[in-house]
Amino acid sequence: MNPKRVAIVGASGYSGEELVRLLLSHPGVQLAAVTSRQYAGQTLAQVFPKFAHHPRARKLCFSEPKAELLAQEAQVVFLALPHGVAAEFAVPLLQLGCRVIDLSADFRLKSPGVYKDFYAREHPAPALLAQAVYGLPEVYRDQIKSASLIACPGCYPTSILLPCIPLLRAGLVRPAGIIADSLSGVSGAGRKAEPDYLFVECNESVRPYGLPKHRHLAEVEQELSLAAGTQVTLQFTPHLVPVSRGILTTLYLAPNARFDRPGDLGEFGKKVAACYLAAYRDEPFVRVLEGQNLPDTKNVVGTNVLELAWRLDPRTGRLIVMSAEDNLLKGASGQAVQSLNLICDLPEITGLV
Amino acid sequence: MNPKRVAIVGASGYSGEELVRLLLSHPGVQLAAVTSRQYAGQTLAQVFPKFAHHPRARKLCFSEPKAELLAQEAQVVFLALPHGVAAEFAVPLLQLGCRVIDLSADFRLKSPGVYKDFYAREHPAPALLAQAVYGLPEVYRDQIKSASLIACPGCYPTSILLPCIPLLRAGLVRPAGIIADSLSGVSGAGRKAEPDYLFVECNESVRPYGLPKHRHLAEVEQELSLAAGTQVTLQFTPHLVPVSRGILTTLYLAPNARFDRPGDLGEFGKKVAACYLAAYRDEPFVRVLEGQNLPDTKNVVGTNVLELAWRLDPRTGRLIVMSAEDNLLKGASGQAVQSLNLICDLPEITGLV
Amino acid sequence: MNPKRVAIVGASGYSGEELVRLLLSHPGVQLAAVTSRQYAGQTLAQVFPKFAHHPRARKLCFSEPKAELLAQEAQVVFLALPHGVAAEFAVPLLQLGCRVIDLSADFRLKSPGVYKDFYAREHPAPALLAQAVYGLPEVYRDQIKSASLIACPGCYPTSILLPCIPLLRAGLVRPAGIIADSLSGVSGAGRKAEPDYLFVECNESVRPYGLPKHRHLAEVEQELSLAAGTQVTLQFTPHLVPVSRGILTTLYLAPNARFDRPGDLGEFGKKVAACYLAAYRDEPFVRVLEGQNLPDTKNVVGTNVLELAWRLDPRTGRLIVMSAEDNLLKGASGQAVQSLNLICDLPEITGLV
Amino acid sequence: MNPKRVAIVGASGYSGEELVRLLLSHPGVQLAAVTSRQYAGQTLAQVFPKFAHHPRARKLCFSEPKAELLAQEAQVVFLALPHGVAAEFAVPLLQLGCRVIDLSADFRLKSPGVYKDFYAREHPAPALLAQAVYGLPEVYRDQIKSASLIACPGCYPTSILLPCIPLLRAGLVRPAGIIADSLSGVSGAGRKAEPDYLFVECNESVRPYGLPKHRHLAEVEQELSLAAGTQVTLQFTPHLVPVSRGILTTLYLAPNARFDRPGDLGEFGKKVAACYLAAYRDEPFVRVLEGQNLPDTKNVVGTNVLELAWRLDPRTGRLIVMSAEDNLLKGASGQAVQSLNLICDLPEITGLV
Repeated sequence: MNPKRVAIVGASGYSGEELVRLLLSHPGVQLAAVTSRQYAGQTLAQVFPKFAHHPRARKLCFSEPKAELLAQEAQVVFLALPHGVAAEFAVPLLQLGCRVIDLSADFRLKSPGVYKDFYAREHPAPALLAQAVYGLPEVYRDQIKSASLIACPGCYPTSILLPCIPLLRAGLVRPAGIIADSLSGVSGAGRKAEPDYLFVECNESVRPYGLPKHRHLAEVEQELSLAAGTQVTLQFTPHLVPVSRGILTTLYLAPNARFDRPGDLGEFGKKVAACYLAAYRDEPFVRVLEGQNLPDTKNVVGTNVLELAWRLDPRTGRLIVMSAEDNLLKGASGQAVQSLNLICDLPEITGLV
Repeated sequence: MNPKRVAIVGASGYSGEELVRLLLSHPGVQLAAVTSRQYAGQTLAQVFPKFAHHPRARKLCFSEPKAELLAQEAQVVFLALPHGVAAEFAVPLLQLGCRVIDLSADFRLKSPGVYKDFYAREHPAPALLAQAVYGLPEVYRDQIKSASLIACPGCYPTSILLPCIPLLRAGLVRPAGIIADSLSGVSGAGRKAEPDYLFVECNESVRPYGLPKHRHLAEVEQELSLAAGTQVTLQFTPHLVPVSRGILTTLYLAPNARFDRPGDLGEFGKKVAACYLAAYRDEPFVRVLEGQNLPDTKNVVGTNVLELAWRLDPRTGRLIVMSAEDNLLKGASGQAVQSLNLICDLPEITGLV
Repeated sequence: MNPKRVAIVGASGYSGEELVRLLLSHPGVQLAAVTSRQYAGQTLAQVFPKFAHHPRARKLCFSEPKAELLAQEAQVVFLALPHGVAAEFAVPLLQLGCRVIDLSADFRLKSPGVYKDFYAREHPAPALLAQAVYGLPEVYRDQIKSASLIACPGCYPTSILLPCIPLLRAGLVRPAGIIADSLSGVSGAGRKAEPDYLFVECNESVRPYGLPKHRHLAEVEQELSLAAGTQVTLQFTPHLVPVSRGILTTLYLAPNARFDRPGDLGEFGKKVAACYLAAYRDEPFVRVLEGQNLPDTKNVVGTNVLELAWRLDPRTGRLIVMSAEDNLLKGASGQAVQSLNLICDLPEITGLV
Repeated sequence: MNPKRVAIVGASGYSGEELVRLLLSHPGVQLAAVTSRQYAGQTLAQVFPKFAHHPRARKLCFSEPKAELLAQEAQVVFLALPHGVAAEFAVPLLQLGCRVIDLSADFRLKSPGVYKDFYAREHPAPALLAQAVYGLPEVYRDQIKSASLIACPGCYPTSILLPCIPLLRAGLVRPAGIIADSLSGVSGAGRKAEPDYLFVECNESVRPYGLPKHRHLAEVEQELSLAAGTQVTLQFTPHLVPVSRGILTTLYLAPNARFDRPGDLGEFGKKVAACYLAAYRDEPFVRVLEGQNLPDTKNVVGTNVLELAWRLDPRTGRLIVMSAEDNLLKGASGQAVQSLNLICDLPEITGLV
């Protein structure tokens, strides 16, 4: 059987670069095309010397991003583009029969109205929203397998949704009053030459930003609401910390339980443990930590794993859940490859361990 | 008038080193003695080459820590020692007539029972608790001036108390359900040669630790309760981030108000602004940020300033307050020198700008 | 064919941990045993949660390090131990028929006298020195294939030898007066809980150390002398810089040529280019950069590649060669796996790309 | 006596910001004006919230940079501008009677021809070169005192010149074959929003750049040649390392001596020690380290001190000298304030300790 041919549109940002890395060594597909206006005509090896020891990187040239050519070269196309731009490529590619895995925010929301509210522009292709599948394999595995358009979740959303969805579905925590406090590495801002992201401005700096209405809120609330069966409004505070990669999210949740008698807390803890066990025991990329272990971004950076731990605070009765992931892998390109494996009928871990 | 003579017991840790730096160039006092079992007999310049260009550092030798000698050398003694050990020194020094500024946790709590609950040992000198003044000048300025024993607040507590106390005193926020999510630089752990604090373990690492019952909770809850006039139980999650210095705290507070009509939120915002203005307009070391500015540790590291900003979230009705400080200055040694200036009747900013 | 069974003695340091990572996912061998006094009885997943998503890591327990047991479990044994200790394990393992790949310095030198001079102790097993092969595949590929005892090069030596050996063999540079100025990440110091390697001591710090007689000099001079056909004495200055991984070495070399006429410099440059092309064109793990590119540790960290670039200075007539590698991979564990592949008759890149 | 009034032209870069910090708290002068096209009309406190606790920063507004206005406001004007632009301001300011302290490269070279060779443009004001004094107080103290135009040395040059000049003047080392290998923090590149200086590109990265003909070479060779009494050609390799501030330079020098007899090396070492003692014993900002201490940027960052240490290598006969400084203080703004103090007849350390 011939390996599926895949292409990347917009391979020059950090997510695109990670996609290149993953797909160059992916045993089940062939990286057939990469596009970049800026680098058209140069080989992957010339633009990214770090891939130069890979034979294919010395041959494959960046081409101009044109849908017709891409559709000839590849059966699956990844879009690693800014929101707004991604939708413009998705439309013709889908018409030409490609399956599209979009890493932007363009197809994550079901409602064009919410899109407009958070992204301050009309949705560029609202007709496609209904067919897009939210690319979180742990939640939408079956739909992804047959999807023609997959909207990969954002990095913050992944770090919030995987810890919360099982608890909300099981009714263990209240949908109201959830707080997500997130710490992100600087690659989350992309390869943008802006003063805020200069080394000297980020190094030895810890700072909140973008609160209280960050764009990622929209998709998180949509998915939490679906899990809870009721509208969820989230409090979300992102912070920038001086690491290149990684997101650490701390969630403050209210148990849907009363702790009146001595054993109640322990009882509830067992339910949380059982809930996570049922949800993630067989998931290759979610690791529920045991014992005294707490998440640490350095243990997941470079992998597609999200790790999480939880603590019940007997003094306040709150449930604290913490998660760590690599924002460019489980939070972006790794998760996109998980979806690729699903639509190619390959083992989900192919090329990711 | 002769400058007051001061001494530092335990000058080899990070707080002690910062105290040395501040006191060497303090124009109103003379650093008369420094003690360290480990370095006894060596000059300050030999132990810390970075101070070697200061003439006094080339002369002043570390001595063995003995209360009698210290009382002869100095009128004010700083204790930069682990908790438990500090109390052992405070007792004889006070008896010998010294004024003591303790940077440890030994005299921060009013209740020996709470001390035992959080520090897992009997308090070593409970009789002194009543006379100790909590060394937060913005709150206890008058009491500090005449205190013989000053218990300097911890680094996390300072970052939580200064933003919360004015709001609680004014009844603007509810005492229940407060959440403090803090990010600390690694110097907060002290100069301990433990694997957890090695460069390779901290660099490119973001991680929570010590939850849900961190020792600093005890003093924070004591002071918040005093401000609120009712018992406050705090949710507190400390995280370690890869910076040497700095604490960034994000506080989640529930306004003591209802936002039913369109203008209510704006109205409440004005009250918050007025409350902070009244509390901190004349404080040299608290900076309430204006406009779009948010706290950033890099803007306060190396200074004794705590900066804070707040946002009212119209979607959730919550008040978010963020603060940034240098954990070794406003969170430790700088704040201790503020107290020194108060008891010496010097301008409070002496040696701190 | 059954995959070769391999074991790691001393898997708890940074090199050992990298070996575990590489061997867990190596498609041609089975990690049959790991030993550690400290962790005996615990699984790999318990000690290193970051490997917990690998099925084998959840089953494989650390055992006590005993040669007889190891020889039953494994055909090839890696020693990731301090120098001196490694030799004690190598002797019985070789007698029991294992092939040994040693990452310590114990078998890198041909001369017990030089060992004593640089390591300040008698060599613990001088009889084995003659049979040990220096594990630099680009230089000793054939000898490694049949070796029973492989002495993997140190991290600094690899970064110096690969750039210099082809030039010395070709007589293009003078053996006298070579200077190597190296910058190392902190993992080079190992997982030692010493104050010098604490985050706060390394972060925002750049410093030389260990000059002028660093232990690695001995093996570098041995190998440079073999390449030059004459005794080489090296000037070597290591520096510690605040990165977790990576070594950048800048070499100052005197061309064995005179630049009297206008074209002489260009002529010599062509010889250097041809020399490197011949030496490394077919090497999978040495990348000679082209055009304006210069080595950057971030382009090699996480890979087994050493990259190098050179410049001829027309003002001074000197040849400057710069190399970058991951000290834990090409400088330690990755190079050790290269040797493993050679002795197992597997493609040299197996498990390394 | 009224304090001298000073102004800063171009106060928005990193050196300018440091100048603002130093001059706001300088007890002997008054910061009378700051200019910036970008920020004209805003207060210092608005542009740099970190200075907002300083009363003067809340009042002083950035103005448009106009020579006539500056000459009315200030007696001494600092130019913190790109090269080329600085000269355009210096000409009218000098004509209007101001004394000018220029932090750019415009007046560091004696020869307009060398300027053209290294900066690829005609010198914009060659007539001023003769009157400019190179602002290295340890070398040109007397000339600075009466200078109207002071050309502050670059950061790399300072780290090379202070270690080399006494040795060359004393004839202790040979002028030929000197090598300077320098490691710089990222602030050395200025506040330029270029991809190369983004956090993600610099963090976990160690890399050489700009060799073999860096612009700073011109002024270093000029000053080394003056010290040696003969033309000196330098080998210089700058590297970028992930710290915000600091330069560490390692110098390789050939002793002007023969080490034939056993005691020769020790004898020469005594001469080096005596040479440095004579040169720097009374210098407040040069620290020659003793014993086993080696320079470390973290011990000088935030200060105006350059520290240095030297080692004689008995194996190679070479003299290695290492220096560390804060590139923005002793390498730029601190050194400029040293010159300010000299021309204002203030103690040289005023405002710098």
